[in-house]
Amino acid sequence: MTPDATAAALALIKPSVRAQTAYTLDAPPAPRKLNQNESPFDAPPAVKEAVLAAMRQEPWNRYPPFTPTDLVRRLAARHGWMAEGVLVGNGSNELIQTTLAVTVGAGTPVVTPVPTFSLYRLLVAVFGGRHVAVPLGSDFAFDVDALIRAVREARAPLVVVNSPNNPTGTPLPDGALGRLLAETDALVVVDEAYQDFGGPTGLPLLRQHPRLVVLRTFSKAMSLAGLRFGYALAHPAVAAEIAKAKLPYNVNRVTLAAAAAALDAGDVLARRTEEVRRQRDLLYQRLGTIPGLRAYPSAANFVLIRCETRPATEVFTRLVQQYGILVRDVSGGGHGLEGCLRITAGTADDVTAVTGALAEILA
Amino acid sequence: MTPDATAAALALIKPSVRAQTAYTLDAPPAPRKLNQNESPFDAPPAVKEAVLAAMRQEPWNRYPPFTPTDLVRRLAARHGWMAEGVLVGNGSNELIQTTLAVTVGAGTPVVTPVPTFSLYRLLVAVFGGRHVAVPLGSDFAFDVDALIRAVREARAPLVVVNSPNNPTGTPLPDGALGRLLAETDALVVVDEAYQDFGGPTGLPLLRQHPRLVVLRTFSKAMSLAGLRFGYALAHPAVAAEIAKAKLPYNVNRVTLAAAAAALDAGDVLARRTEEVRRQRDLLYQRLGTIPGLRAYPSAANFVLIRCETRPATEVFTRLVQQYGILVRDVSGGGHGLEGCLRITAGTADDVTAVTGALAEILA
Repeated sequence: MTPDATAAALALIKPSVRAQTAYTLDAPPAPRKLNQNESPFDAPPAVKEAVLAAMRQEPWNRYPPFTPTDLVRRLAARHGWMAEGVLVGNGSNELIQTTLAVTVGAGTPVVTPVPTFSLYRLLVAVFGGRHVAVPLGSDFAFDVDALIRAVREARAPLVVVNSPNNPTGTPLPDGALGRLLAETDALVVVDEAYQDFGGPTGLPLLRQHPRLVVLRTFSKAMSLAGLRFGYALAHPAVAAEIAKAKLPYNVNRVTLAAAAAALDAGDVLARRTEEVRRQRDLLYQRLGTIPGLRAYPSAANFVLIRCETRPATEVFTRLVQQYGILVRDVSGGGHGLEGCLRITAGTADDVTAVTGALAEILA
Repeated sequence: MTPDATAAALALIKPSVRAQTAYTLDAPPAPRKLNQNESPFDAPPAVKEAVLAAMRQEPWNRYPPFTPTDLVRRLAARHGWMAEGVLVGNGSNELIQTTLAVTVGAGTPVVTPVPTFSLYRLLVAVFGGRHVAVPLGSDFAFDVDALIRAVREARAPLVVVNSPNNPTGTPLPDGALGRLLAETDALVVVDEAYQDFGGPTGLPLLRQHPRLVVLRTFSKAMSLAGLRFGYALAHPAVAAEIAKAKLPYNVNRVTLAAAAAALDAGDVLARRTEEVRRQRDLLYQRLGTIPGLRAYPSAANFVLIRCETRPATEVFTRLVQQYGILVRDVSGGGHGLEGCLRITAGTADDVTAVTGALAEILA
């Protein structure tokens, strides 16, 4: 294999892809894992047992159902929506990808706030689109006026907002989605991966707005990050178009069973979500008392901090190496994230450990 | 929600997507399922038990590993390839999608033989590319000269071949992949979903050809269609580019465990593959003795037939309704498939049942 042959192969990849850096996660192993905004609790035993019992019976050699009708109906009913307007995915990431695939081509402007979940920018580039980045405002609050202005000026057919926003924790202000829909002509995708923990939801707007797509996930509040399940809610006609880019049999049999079992365990999961919200608030309060550190208010299951007296990367490294606590170093993410770390709200014990460690490191 | 508002929403979808018909499968329930080229055998009990035991221990609330290092190493070793040149996916479909995403933009010509797996054409359209269809030759044999000519004339950066080809069962002729690589400048994607059952493999060419991508699946010979696992093998530099369009955490924990368990059960699965090949040959021979029906030779785990004296759709319907046997009606697929049905090679009992039923229907 000669270097020339390799260069010739790489020349067949789209320049917009070659220019991108892959999404990666460099996470050293650590006993206390507060870096991926997962639930601190494993799936409830009843969920695991129900899924294992179902899987023992199911034929693994057979493709999953083309449309998991019962599950889709239950998800629709959960949100008072139509089954024809629900699409299931291998995590909500797949539905972000699919929605972008059917709307973004060469040069298509796509507006998102920044900083936000970096996958949006990467996928826009893969599809050849142009990312129009609108900075969040003071204290990472959404600048709704600026978003609307950017969509209109770029004549963007698509705007993607994550609420509460990762990695800042900021929710959309009340009424912002309605304004985005009323004051632009764009398809508005709202990624509500963290909405179980706080902030408004776009769900009530679905009935009036065929230009709205709401994404939800079972990876956070539903304790199923390891099984990958997410879904989209949209007008049935829009859902049917998005479905064209969705791969057949994209959600496997185990994940379908797990999603159904998680819905059955809705009460226990809702109580856990309450507990995580309490710990998130406690985490924010305690972080606020540590000198040399600024904490941003969060409606999600994590809190963003800014290290004001020590380099963030040093704080990150000491947390892992001296305390066995892994958080997310987002300080290289640009867009005002300099000096910032993102800390998942875990258990009460996690909150005590990470705030204690930070107080020592920053002392 | 007014019709105008819905129309405005649909206007934001790319025209190339709106023009497509979604991939669908309309499959009435039937006791004997010979329509999806699945293995007739459930995953071996040892595989199921190993996976269930592993899943009982694993934290479902935690994302899967960013790269499943051990599994990737084992897959690489299985084919004498480099771990850096292996990408895992949620079925090989996901890796088809990802490979197209990084190579196909507005107007990009993509060559495939026709008839073939319809997902290629659909995904090319989603990404805004132009499908260049090269008819298979006499008896659905690959026309390698015509493929090469089409790639050169269209200056296509990508050619996708499925060998053995779905739905015809035809394998690439020996030496064809080498010629495609030597006589064109394109990236050559060979989808070897059915290669365990026959025909040549592109694997030995990987070392010399950075323009080759080989796709494999665990959905057929490995009895895991219900869990969705596939992988791609390519030059590490090319794999790194394809990986940019791959979603993080795209393969869930259960599927990772199942893929590893299936590798552990390699011997029993290889014996089953031998048995399916025997049944495939028997199915072909017996079909050949039924008047009014033509069977095409197959290197895959299915056989394509042409109904010469009765409409295919009538034969399909009678098979389901009178005999409880579900096959795939591909007669509407164009490209010479008029009158054709595709029949999965199942167990000896399946072969007896479907050939007996066809003999009665066509008598």
